[in-house]
Amino acid sequence: MPETKCKKDEDFNEWYNEIVELADLCDKRYPIKGMNVWRPYGWKLMNHVDKLIHEEMRKTNHQEVNFPLLIPESSFKKEEEHIEGFGSEVFWITHAGLNQLEERWLLRPTSETAMYPMFSLWIRSHADLPLKIYQIVNTFRYETKQTRAFIRVREIHFFEAHTCHVNFESAEDQIREDKEIAKRLFEKMCLPFIFCKRPEWDKFAGAYYTISIDVLMPSNRTLQLGSIHQYRDNFSKPYEISYETDEGTHAYCHQTTYGMSERILGALVGIHGDNKGLVMPPEVAPRQVVIIPIIFKGKERIVMDACKDIYDNLIKIGIRVHIDDRDITPGNKYYDWELKGVPLRIEIGPRDVENQQMVLVRRDTGEKKSVPIQKADEIVQQIFGLINQNLYLKAKEFLDKNIHRVHSVEEARNLEGIIEIPWCGNEKCALEIENVLEGNTLGEPIDDSDRPDNCYCSLCGQSAEKWMRYARTY
Amino acid sequence: MPETKCKKDEDFNEWYNEIVELADLCDKRYPIKGMNVWRPYGWKLMNHVDKLIHEEMRKTNHQEVNFPLLIPESSFKKEEEHIEGFGSEVFWITHAGLNQLEERWLLRPTSETAMYPMFSLWIRSHADLPLKIYQIVNTFRYETKQTRAFIRVREIHFFEAHTCHVNFESAEDQIREDKEIAKRLFEKMCLPFIFCKRPEWDKFAGAYYTISIDVLMPSNRTLQLGSIHQYRDNFSKPYEISYETDEGTHAYCHQTTYGMSERILGALVGIHGDNKGLVMPPEVAPRQVVIIPIIFKGKERIVMDACKDIYDNLIKIGIRVHIDDRDITPGNKYYDWELKGVPLRIEIGPRDVENQQMVLVRRDTGEKKSVPIQKADEIVQQIFGLINQNLYLKAKEFLDKNIHRVHSVEEARNLEGIIEIPWCGNEKCALEIENVLEGNTLGEPIDDSDRPDNCYCSLCGQSAEKWMRYARTY
Repeated sequence: MPETKCKKDEDFNEWYNEIVELADLCDKRYPIKGMNVWRPYGWKLMNHVDKLIHEEMRKTNHQEVNFPLLIPESSFKKEEEHIEGFGSEVFWITHAGLNQLEERWLLRPTSETAMYPMFSLWIRSHADLPLKIYQIVNTFRYETKQTRAFIRVREIHFFEAHTCHVNFESAEDQIREDKEIAKRLFEKMCLPFIFCKRPEWDKFAGAYYTISIDVLMPSNRTLQLGSIHQYRDNFSKPYEISYETDEGTHAYCHQTTYGMSERILGALVGIHGDNKGLVMPPEVAPRQVVIIPIIFKGKERIVMDACKDIYDNLIKIGIRVHIDDRDITPGNKYYDWELKGVPLRIEIGPRDVENQQMVLVRRDTGEKKSVPIQKADEIVQQIFGLINQNLYLKAKEFLDKNIHRVHSVEEARNLEGIIEIPWCGNEKCALEIENVLEGNTLGEPIDDSDRPDNCYCSLCGQSAEKWMRYARTY
Repeated sequence: MPETKCKKDEDFNEWYNEIVELADLCDKRYPIKGMNVWRPYGWKLMNHVDKLIHEEMRKTNHQEVNFPLLIPESSFKKEEEHIEGFGSEVFWITHAGLNQLEERWLLRPTSETAMYPMFSLWIRSHADLPLKIYQIVNTFRYETKQTRAFIRVREIHFFEAHTCHVNFESAEDQIREDKEIAKRLFEKMCLPFIFCKRPEWDKFAGAYYTISIDVLMPSNRTLQLGSIHQYRDNFSKPYEISYETDEGTHAYCHQTTYGMSERILGALVGIHGDNKGLVMPPEVAPRQVVIIPIIFKGKERIVMDACKDIYDNLIKIGIRVHIDDRDITPGNKYYDWELKGVPLRIEIGPRDVENQQMVLVRRDTGEKKSVPIQKADEIVQQIFGLINQNLYLKAKEFLDKNIHRVHSVEEARNLEGIIEIPWCGNEKCALEIENVLEGNTLGEPIDDSDRPDNCYCSLCGQSAEKWMRYARTY
């Protein structure tokens, strides 16, 4: 069977670039750089990821809305840090038809400045709080760096939840909920991650603090899949989002946001894939099981009937199953579905039918075994559990192996992956460490108990308050 | 119970403007004209409509894709009539960050010019045909006329299917399929409509011919909900979408498109609603049944238990049901759910529980009746059938009553609704008839057998080839 031209462990980035097109996820030939076409298979995969997000939002009482894409310049310019952070990254509409607009409009890079003028109309009293809404929409950023499918693009498939609360503590509760959502969500996709509290100089423009959700890609670069922000009242003041308290006074809301993007697909492809193609976790696989009839002349009917029985059995319990009855060789079918990462393949020929058996082949391990046809539903579900476990543990092992806690930059110099190093708290030292390690500051571990004991900043030698993480990043 | 300030039959347009906000479908206070915020209830409703569309696309083997929003000016300008038709209606991006772009990009008003350069790469041989894809995305048109929620907006929630075929006849087959899709879809939403073959001078920019899907709103204006286009090879030539035939020669594809938009919501609101609010057909109602416990002190438990039983019973058969256990009066709950158009309300108090009865109230007719709790699932489904029938027939009766087939403009002068009048085929006569009737040319009936016999153009007196329809339009 042909494999990818680039090998994953030889040149991860090239392998990645090749596989996203080969597996029909996207087409990068669209004439604007960084804006790719979602092909049917890629879009289905994204939809399954979105479905998990919708479920989590429903469980946590977030309401789905949909805001306009365009934002007037005047709405955008109300929060100073936000403009500073995003001003150089937005696309501007200046003309409509043949007319110049009176005011320029921008394409949302994120929707704070579209939503918050409306929140200020929607929220009147504490009875309106908490307000918890979200949307999944296209957003736009003018990337000048090299683009990469799903990872660095200019039109982004974006999830954003926005919440408003009576006070800081209630907003903190929301952030705790957001962290739980992230844990459940990424576990379903077999993606172990770390939370990092981003450093002051690299938090979201306008935020009080930012927690990032980072995974480690096989190239030993981290990829930020999402972020959770505490805004305190930084936006509610300029946007006048206030409410009447029980006592009849007025108070500003405290706000949070939670954002994620199609980068999740980048992680699914990059972390689980191999030289044969994608390896999809069952929860998000557009097709979870593919049945391949092995047909010999004269035996077509009994084989197809058996396939249909298995199909019915699996459909009944909600499995996304497909019978591949195309007129090509079984080998070509194996190749196709391995490339597309279908978690489980069922092969069935005349002799299998006679023995009431079928052959199961796991995509993640290649493991084959014969099992009774009648138990298809039960066994498939068991194996999905094993696949989840295997994909998660493999990725977790890689992540754990590549987080290095060291005490000096010298120790870190030749290490790959994520470096944790004691840090005094000064930006200057952190930036210097970045220089030496040729990496970026990711942020601190968020667990307060996780503080260095009797350690000193590797650069200035002052007492170290925290561990700070560094990595090369996408 | 309070009703809308404007009465539907007194001032339909004002009633409509009021109800879309009152029922929480959208918020029109966003600072850009014609770009409204979808509130949770409106977005849910739109999602349910989309779900019906997705189902139809799946059944007819259309694949879902997602193309970039932005189109380079050079791609846009390949088909002359298309530019002429849309050039004055598009939004232009000229700057990114602080830089002026080398080439201007526009926001898609529709995606022909985004998709077709890619189709030309995707299609190689006749084995790649037919290509049938669709997407549901935001599109943009610079409307200068008065905007109206869902009906005339500048950011449009848009469905577009695009197909490529080996020849004209195969594209015609697609159009037949599209018409069947429209029939199934709008019947589910209880929206009777007419197909009109749009006149030459008012077809889609670049099309060979256009069939519109029009409904008649209670104001006696028609609203175009969608359109189906035969492009022949008008686009495939400039965009070079060709394939290798069986014989090894090259031929241009023939193409069709099918578009619909959030205007469907406008029709659902306008046609079915009344002075109490929305009236949603069960197929698309975000909540299909609401259960209102009528609670008296000491009897809370038995009532709530009965509600829960009914709820479980209905959930099991896939009904979208909700128990409203808020601490407000039943009357206020009735008001809320009537406003939101929930098709069926169940009221249940202690005495009902004793008798193992519940009270059903239909939103469309107001009809009340007591029925056995145990039969909830069966009866609710029956009543949904009756509601569908009633909504459809009521709308159909209105439509039929207001299509007037006449033989002269004089006969038509004082008629409201849709006028069918014999027409010679000359644009000049049609435009003059528009003037006299103060309406727009809708188009001809598409049924070929439906031709005027021994009739003469009401204007020039020449022999009339066709019936032509006129109406005031949105």
